[in-house]
Amino acid sequence: MSELKELKELLVKFRDERDWEQFHNSKDLALALSIEAAELNELFLWKGNEDCDQERLREELADVFSFAILLAAKHDLDIAEIIKDKIKLNGQKYTIEKSKGNAKKYDQL
Amino acid sequence: MSELKELKELLVKFRDERDWEQFHNSKDLALALSIEAAELNELFLWKGNEDCDQERLREELADVFSFAILLAAKHDLDIAEIIKDKIKLNGQKYTIEKSKGNAKKYDQL
Amino acid sequence: MSELKELKELLVKFRDERDWEQFHNSKDLALALSIEAAELNELFLWKGNEDCDQERLREELADVFSFAILLAAKHDLDIAEIIKDKIKLNGQKYTIEKSKGNAKKYDQL
Amino acid sequence: MSELKELKELLVKFRDERDWEQFHNSKDLALALSIEAAELNELFLWKGNEDCDQERLREELADVFSFAILLAAKHDLDIAEIIKDKIKLNGQKYTIEKSKGNAKKYDQL
Repeated sequence: MSELKELKELLVKFRDERDWEQFHNSKDLALALSIEAAELNELFLWKGNEDCDQERLREELADVFSFAILLAAKHDLDIAEIIKDKIKLNGQKYTIEKSKGNAKKYDQL
Repeated sequence: MSELKELKELLVKFRDERDWEQFHNSKDLALALSIEAAELNELFLWKGNEDCDQERLREELADVFSFAILLAAKHDLDIAEIIKDKIKLNGQKYTIEKSKGNAKKYDQL
Repeated sequence: MSELKELKELLVKFRDERDWEQFHNSKDLALALSIEAAELNELFLWKGNEDCDQERLREELADVFSFAILLAAKHDLDIAEIIKDKIKLNGQKYTIEKSKGNAKKYDQL
Repeated sequence: MSELKELKELLVKFRDERDWEQFHNSKDLALALSIEAAELNELFLWKGNEDCDQERLREELADVFSFAILLAAKHDLDIAEIIKDKIKLNGQKYTIEKSKGNAKKYDQL
């Protein structure tokens, strides 16, 4: 079994053992993801760019991945496929020629 | 090569072709992730729980995954490992006994 | 009329002219606020701490205030009162003695 | 003194008594604001649209206002003015004719 499929199954099992599917609508999964993303950001608040607690980084990043995987699962999305598709799309929005060495958003290039 | 390793290498290649590593400090990667999470949430704003544009869901979720993978890569984290570790930890915080059928946060159980 | 009351009335008038109260439940107002906060943060993404577009800062910060005022209005909260109450509470969590010159969160002091 | 000016002065006094101005760069103030916005959203996570703890709503909303006021102060912005200017701008983006009774974003009208 692929890694991502295995992770999905572990997360779905955890959810189902607790009878939590009833709470996991798409809107709340997206909301949970953004709350975990904020907790991840809090590790850097009032601090330098690399100055964060490594143990908590592991945990908060794992939470972000977990809700992202559950939301993808809910919509039967193949995670590897959507990422590869987005890389292609971004390659058109951010051509090497225009983007090399600058961090501007595509609509300001 | 594992799926997650392949995805990481594609994302790192995309980044390096554009000479973007200079911008990708941990704090800004976490910030980028939370901005993408907000764009994902915007798909549900003023709408019902399942009422969102499927094409944009694919794209925004892919963006979230991409920054999460890049942040994990920057810290040499094994994504499968940190998720499995967090599932174990959550199993202690959210025991089946206490959490079954309710969505309360662990500190309110 | 007080400034905050006047602003509330302008925002409520704008909302009601568009028949938008039907969309403005508390959960979506809070979500809208956090999406605007993310747009505000995007002004600083991949940039230095003070390096942002002043015109867009005005606009995004105004959006944050607007949803915050509408959410307060929905719950009949007196904005000056809740801020003053929170300052008092924070004064207990972050005593001058313990917090002076450091930015640690109260639970790590 | 106006309400908003008084609130600003209370918040600046609280900050200065703790010698916190050194941490309050614009990027981190915006980040703090979005973290507080996430805490506000957490009150609604896995819940219905109006189902939240009123006491915590007061506190989290106060935190959002506080960082928004401090960020405005840092940039010498007149809060009433930026909100009124944005209402005008939004009136052009969301004309009553096009927006009445629908919640679509201006670029989809």
